[in-house]
Amino acid sequence: MRLARAAVAEFLGTALLLAAVVGSGIMGERLAGGNTAIALLANSLATGGALVCLIAVFAPISGAHLNPAVSLADALRGGLSWRETPVYIGAQIAGAIVGVAAANVMFGLPLFFASHHVRSGGAQWFSEFLATFGLLAIIWGCARHRPAIVPFTVAAYIVAAYWFTSSTSFANPAVTIARSLTDTFSGIRPDDVAGFVAAQLLGALAATALFAWLAPQSGEASHDLA
Amino acid sequence: MRLARAAVAEFLGTALLLAAVVGSGIMGERLAGGNTAIALLANSLATGGALVCLIAVFAPISGAHLNPAVSLADALRGGLSWRETPVYIGAQIAGAIVGVAAANVMFGLPLFFASHHVRSGGAQWFSEFLATFGLLAIIWGCARHRPAIVPFTVAAYIVAAYWFTSSTSFANPAVTIARSLTDTFSGIRPDDVAGFVAAQLLGALAATALFAWLAPQSGEASHDLA
Amino acid sequence: MRLARAAVAEFLGTALLLAAVVGSGIMGERLAGGNTAIALLANSLATGGALVCLIAVFAPISGAHLNPAVSLADALRGGLSWRETPVYIGAQIAGAIVGVAAANVMFGLPLFFASHHVRSGGAQWFSEFLATFGLLAIIWGCARHRPAIVPFTVAAYIVAAYWFTSSTSFANPAVTIARSLTDTFSGIRPDDVAGFVAAQLLGALAATALFAWLAPQSGEASHDLA
Amino acid sequence: MRLARAAVAEFLGTALLLAAVVGSGIMGERLAGGNTAIALLANSLATGGALVCLIAVFAPISGAHLNPAVSLADALRGGLSWRETPVYIGAQIAGAIVGVAAANVMFGLPLFFASHHVRSGGAQWFSEFLATFGLLAIIWGCARHRPAIVPFTVAAYIVAAYWFTSSTSFANPAVTIARSLTDTFSGIRPDDVAGFVAAQLLGALAATALFAWLAPQSGEASHDLA
Repeated sequence: MRLARAAVAEFLGTALLLAAVVGSGIMGERLAGGNTAIALLANSLATGGALVCLIAVFAPISGAHLNPAVSLADALRGGLSWRETPVYIGAQIAGAIVGVAAANVMFGLPLFFASHHVRSGGAQWFSEFLATFGLLAIIWGCARHRPAIVPFTVAAYIVAAYWFTSSTSFANPAVTIARSLTDTFSGIRPDDVAGFVAAQLLGALAATALFAWLAPQSGEASHDLA
Repeated sequence: MRLARAAVAEFLGTALLLAAVVGSGIMGERLAGGNTAIALLANSLATGGALVCLIAVFAPISGAHLNPAVSLADALRGGLSWRETPVYIGAQIAGAIVGVAAANVMFGLPLFFASHHVRSGGAQWFSEFLATFGLLAIIWGCARHRPAIVPFTVAAYIVAAYWFTSSTSFANPAVTIARSLTDTFSGIRPDDVAGFVAAQLLGALAATALFAWLAPQSGEASHDLA
Repeated sequence: MRLARAAVAEFLGTALLLAAVVGSGIMGERLAGGNTAIALLANSLATGGALVCLIAVFAPISGAHLNPAVSLADALRGGLSWRETPVYIGAQIAGAIVGVAAANVMFGLPLFFASHHVRSGGAQWFSEFLATFGLLAIIWGCARHRPAIVPFTVAAYIVAAYWFTSSTSFANPAVTIARSLTDTFSGIRPDDVAGFVAAQLLGALAATALFAWLAPQSGEASHDLA
Repeated sequence: MRLARAAVAEFLGTALLLAAVVGSGIMGERLAGGNTAIALLANSLATGGALVCLIAVFAPISGAHLNPAVSLADALRGGLSWRETPVYIGAQIAGAIVGVAAANVMFGLPLFFASHHVRSGGAQWFSEFLATFGLLAIIWGCARHRPAIVPFTVAAYIVAAYWFTSSTSFANPAVTIARSLTDTFSGIRPDDVAGFVAAQLLGALAATALFAWLAPQSGEASHDLA
């Protein structure tokens, strides 16, 4: 029963996250009159606002991972069990896809339509590596010491990372897969998904390894890591 | 006496909320030089800022519902009594209308003048359903576990929802009724009010039902839910 | 000695507040390329950011009033003594004037030069009444129950009030006097100062009277009100 | 071992800070279509977001100074030992330089290329003096009383100071040195580094001396000052 609730929480949380990411991208681009910086400002602030509440709401139920890279890293450090891990990741990917559909419908677009937004090359992959490294550093650094501020630190980080990486910081394999299904502001060409996901997983691994030494007291972090 | 104070709190809080929503919409549009994204950025951030303080101030007095959908959902779950509920809703609607008048007067406009802003159709109604679903999810998910952060999570959510829904997330029947009385940036045509309110109530019901299962420990939430 | 420290805190805090308000107004206008909404966005966010830290830093020393309307209201409710009140107000006004000079110098402008920005008329006065009413409502509503969040609620309120009032919410007599001494974005014509200050004091009185009934437990608020 | 961890934390934290500052400056300028205010809005919000999480993550390990002026001031007040101080400062400068390289690479630019951005003159130096004075005032004022909010107050301060100083508030010698190595939005001409650093150190000293009297209870602040 607890796992069923956790799976629903991961599904619903990731769905609402994608609705926020994709929806605010569409709205931002429609209203910004061609100024991409203003569209990205709206997109990043809306994503941050959504993360604050989604993590606060779902952390007590499932840990509010909302991200396969987080669930995998947590499993590696002995938090999430290997039996629960595929349930979490499946719920996240399914939720992400449903969330993209919700955003598309809210703006009168087709349920799904493949993105043509090219996001590829070394600079983008390095950006995704660094973005996910930073995200996991925050999770391992904050989650044990000060779990109460994790909704705010993760949100603040993502707002920043939308701007300081050239890839606008997807930093989440479920988000990356789902964003290939909308040909709007926040989309990514299906061909480019694999490169992003690989870079994200490497970044998550690197941060998890480093923080096992740097902040060892967080070794016992349970899957209630947020 | 306690109910009288609560009614005044709901009246005053909703009035100040509407003054903030409508006033910042007018200011944003006047200054933005035709760039609607910049106007909505100002409008959303100002609404969020107002919510942080209004919820913090009025929660100890009335629970800071400021929203008939919240009061109804709370009554359904056994928080607010059915005797108090109409007092709350009446105070919210009256306050919302007075708040719109205050905004109109601050900007040298008529006390009331009906909006011509068309907001209708399936995509908009689905947006309002989802916006209110999310709002109630946050309230049921956070209010019991971490009441101290509710002012911040609700504000963060509304800033995000202004952007990720095509309706700019009214998510509040009192707000919807009152915003029909100003023909400015944040207005809604009187004919479109009923559709929005219906979608909002459905969204609130859906979230309340789901969270009764997903986060059952919040079942005893009193009307001090914020 | 405690009063000397409090006076220095009020002086320094109000000086830094005015440096932030006036300086960010100048920077915003210089960079915004004629789009006043973008300039006001920068101005309001910078003012909010400054308030968060100034209240957090100076509250333990002086209560971080930084505003004669707050000191007067606190004295009326028995917090600040009538002997300390003129010391506070004197320090605030002196600090505000020095802060404007600092901003002018940082941007290579004359130490002082009178503003030509007309801010007058009923709509503006009503705006200042409401802005200061709201500010004092937050102080009386939050300061006793949850002093730890006052830096954030006051900052959030001022960001919002810059946008939802037609006067951009001065809400502070010391700030109003000092802003007459800079002919830049945030200035006010010296002739218009008296009207603003009168409206502010009326708003502060109205909120103080209402909250004596609405939230009576805050009656004993000491001058450590933030 | 503890010092090794602290050095890695200062290195990594300052590297990520510079990646955020420089990267978001490049992104902001590329997307803003020539409107410098929008670029600076993105740059300031991204820097603030990064500071929130970096201070929260690294404070338990090293105090999260990320700034030679902070380490020196802390040593002067008996926090950081004089043996640790050069280790901290070395790690900060090395980290800052690596962070600039990371930002340059993320955006497909050369690893290092000297800035041509002139930042000089009395108004700029006074800005840096005041910016660093304010930063240290926040650290001495908040770090003892309320360490839990330091990530938020420092971030709020820096967002504000980007706007209210004419120098956009470097306020950090390691940041200043490193930003000379990128000819992008946030760069500074190598010739202008010394003047900025001198003004910053004077500002830090002035605030440290004043707060030794104004808030003497913070005299025992350890190097866990954040």
